[in-house]
Amino acid sequence: MAKPKKTPRPKAITPKGFRDYFGTEVTERKAMLDRIAEVYHLYGFEALETSAVETVEALGKFLPDVDRPNEGVFAWQEEAESDRPGDWVALRYDMTAPLARVAAQYRNDLPAPYRRYAMGPVWRNEKPGPGRFRQFYQCDADTVGAASVAADAEICAMLSDTLEAVGIPRGDYIVRVNNRKVLNGVMEVAGVLDPADPSKFEHERGIVLRAIDKLDKFGEEGVRLLLGKGRMDESGDFTTGAGLSEAQADTVMGFMAARRDTGAETVERLRTLVQGSQTGLDGVAELETIADLLASQGYGPDRIVIDPSVVRGLGYYTGPVFEAELTFEILDEKGRPRQFGSVAGGGRYDDLVRRFTGQEVPATGISIGVDRLLAALRAKGRVGAPAQGPVVVTVMDRDRMGDYMDMVGELRRAGIRAEVYLGNPKNFGNQLKYADKRESPVAIIQGGDEKERGVVQIKDLVLGAKIAENASLEEWKDRPNQYEVPREQMVAKVREILGSSS
Amino acid sequence: MAKPKKTPRPKAITPKGFRDYFGTEVTERKAMLDRIAEVYHLYGFEALETSAVETVEALGKFLPDVDRPNEGVFAWQEEAESDRPGDWVALRYDMTAPLARVAAQYRNDLPAPYRRYAMGPVWRNEKPGPGRFRQFYQCDADTVGAASVAADAEICAMLSDTLEAVGIPRGDYIVRVNNRKVLNGVMEVAGVLDPADPSKFEHERGIVLRAIDKLDKFGEEGVRLLLGKGRMDESGDFTTGAGLSEAQADTVMGFMAARRDTGAETVERLRTLVQGSQTGLDGVAELETIADLLASQGYGPDRIVIDPSVVRGLGYYTGPVFEAELTFEILDEKGRPRQFGSVAGGGRYDDLVRRFTGQEVPATGISIGVDRLLAALRAKGRVGAPAQGPVVVTVMDRDRMGDYMDMVGELRRAGIRAEVYLGNPKNFGNQLKYADKRESPVAIIQGGDEKERGVVQIKDLVLGAKIAENASLEEWKDRPNQYEVPREQMVAKVREILGSSS
Repeated sequence: MAKPKKTPRPKAITPKGFRDYFGTEVTERKAMLDRIAEVYHLYGFEALETSAVETVEALGKFLPDVDRPNEGVFAWQEEAESDRPGDWVALRYDMTAPLARVAAQYRNDLPAPYRRYAMGPVWRNEKPGPGRFRQFYQCDADTVGAASVAADAEICAMLSDTLEAVGIPRGDYIVRVNNRKVLNGVMEVAGVLDPADPSKFEHERGIVLRAIDKLDKFGEEGVRLLLGKGRMDESGDFTTGAGLSEAQADTVMGFMAARRDTGAETVERLRTLVQGSQTGLDGVAELETIADLLASQGYGPDRIVIDPSVVRGLGYYTGPVFEAELTFEILDEKGRPRQFGSVAGGGRYDDLVRRFTGQEVPATGISIGVDRLLAALRAKGRVGAPAQGPVVVTVMDRDRMGDYMDMVGELRRAGIRAEVYLGNPKNFGNQLKYADKRESPVAIIQGGDEKERGVVQIKDLVLGAKIAENASLEEWKDRPNQYEVPREQMVAKVREILGSSS
Repeated sequence: MAKPKKTPRPKAITPKGFRDYFGTEVTERKAMLDRIAEVYHLYGFEALETSAVETVEALGKFLPDVDRPNEGVFAWQEEAESDRPGDWVALRYDMTAPLARVAAQYRNDLPAPYRRYAMGPVWRNEKPGPGRFRQFYQCDADTVGAASVAADAEICAMLSDTLEAVGIPRGDYIVRVNNRKVLNGVMEVAGVLDPADPSKFEHERGIVLRAIDKLDKFGEEGVRLLLGKGRMDESGDFTTGAGLSEAQADTVMGFMAARRDTGAETVERLRTLVQGSQTGLDGVAELETIADLLASQGYGPDRIVIDPSVVRGLGYYTGPVFEAELTFEILDEKGRPRQFGSVAGGGRYDDLVRRFTGQEVPATGISIGVDRLLAALRAKGRVGAPAQGPVVVTVMDRDRMGDYMDMVGELRRAGIRAEVYLGNPKNFGNQLKYADKRESPVAIIQGGDEKERGVVQIKDLVLGAKIAENASLEEWKDRPNQYEVPREQMVAKVREILGSSS
């Protein structure tokens, strides 16, 4: 007889590019987001939580990265209904596209301006890589319906306050501000933007925008090649350049190198660079206003600076552009020191809802890279202090489970995190191994003999581990790490041990 | 010449069955979940956050509702890779299926037993209805790897503590406990379960399980029809019954009606009912142990009761079953008083990871219906106190934006939620309308004249609204709701007004 065909067992794996978060990985992120939300709330921003799913139509193509393919989302078609095919829907890839939809959908009900924040996962259908996942957190704050650059200045101040609130000390970060309009002015001066015919040189400007976005990656020389004839990469692939003359390229490069010692000097330098372009002069005036508003509130250049070398996102935003960078050094994978780098970015995008309503609605905002900021806090030792595991009440006699549960209940009512061992109690060694895995500071033991005498044994596991480490040293030899106390003194003794070990 | 074809604008709508949550809808839910997480943490449970996406293979068919179609998930196929077709993946439909996958995937690394909690959205591909959405929150706690019913007792105690922690007073809720094994015993006695041949009468038992799950919906009489010949619904559709004789049906119905005044009496009644069935007697002993463990910790029948009429989920769980019900009355849509009903449910399911590993791993847990519990708290006035909007600093002179931002900065540094008006300041009426929409308690006004005199006007908007409501009453007529104070006293005066209005 043929063997019955066996159904293979399902594989217990996370889908490719996704991951699980355990214990403190979850709670530390949550604590950071809570602190960020407090600052946002203080600034008058309101929480918004949209669903993970949007219609593909509403989602549009909002991704800030100009190189990103259009197919960056997880999408599927809804079931057909009797009279029409099902809609295509997708998981949101950022928080901005849902905000645009909300701002259009509820435009008659929302306050104007509308300050909102949003925190949660977003999904990208991209090739996963080391440290690159297809689901990750974003944390955004945006002001919709405020044309004034006071809104941009507020976002910068709030970003500075936020970084300090989560634990990045002043001096360890800097918020840099640039302006797309200034770049447009520079392009006008360089002769690749004609205000009278905006469509002229569109192709060249596209290459210029992509080129300057690569400053971090290719350096000044690489960008110069892309502005000029083009650039061959290591694999031999050639990227056609914008075809700018050396003088034209000088003008563009001069923009990115325009930062001077003070904001006023930088602004003067930029004003010279864009002389003759109204858009450019408008952009410089905006930067000046932002700097003035911030200075009057005490946000000096130790926190927020005008810096034309901020080029990331210039192709996406339409006015001021912000970037928050952490300035301390960490060691990279190879042990070499390097600057931590960017943890947040944003800017003004004045066409947020036009696709939906035809109306131009000004908006400005910021997005914090949650995982990067958390990594920075961990690198600085601001989170990730050894988490206190629960007190473990061991089970010496399985018929007296009620006694052990009473102990654990008493500890919990005293606010002490505690557990009774719920596995098979037969092997006591396993119970201590369990306490070890749970990083328990204290274990409680009560056998029949202790029960009779009305006492419990309390084991200081933190001290025990220290003694084990230093077992050869005389001074540790005779230190007790286990105490016998009357049952009614259990909570007090545990509290004493927890107090001394923390 | 033909007109160029216009691309239609995208519609700004949430996909069908999804919704957006604004402001306090988000923050009140979060506050409730935070309080729940605190209790879970105190009990030694660890946070787990899995990704929203699982392989369809890993997800399996875990939905507790036996009537649910298999196609309840949002699924899509990953892009094919060179050598093989793409995997099918789907959004998680609950928190249990991902836990099963995690328990199998990390079985060598997780502590055993493993207590974990998980909070977050789940997705169901179902026909949306009024108040029924395709994305909603779940909040689960489970203990994996503990065969002892002490784990079940702990879950019940934790559920009781949790309800009180979020604001449901003792007396307004009850946790009911039942046991699937007792039902199996009853079915053995009724002659529809043969321990020697478990596959016999499988079809009949399926109908019995579905029938008793309908007790809430069809009442005793309806269930009796389903246990017997069958039941015709109002539309004329006929559901075939289990074909039990009247005596057999009596036994099953007797199980559900076995609750007596005290737990001990209920247990005795059940013991009589399942006499002759070892499984049934085991189940009764489990209920007795749970009741004893809980009683010794002070969880009496005012909080947790043995109640065989809890039938929901009996078809899904394998041992103890729990349900938390709110016992106070609310008014339904038609203004009639009715009991609030169930807000949480759970139980023991001892085959959690067997599909993955072939090993039997015992598990027990609870799932809180987040939206229902939040609705209950709102009905009891425990959340949803009028949220304090921000203080609004109005803009009388757009050239002095710096002054207004200074004011707002000062208020925020004092911990007072505040905003400067960022819209077009031309129409002052719009600024006050904005403050109204933001539910602002206070507006600050400083025109050129006030600036010169070094003062600000502070408008008490809460008092102003009261005066407007009572304008005809003499006593309100002369009450000032606007104060002029020196600029440097602004924060103190705002604080005074906020103190008196809250």
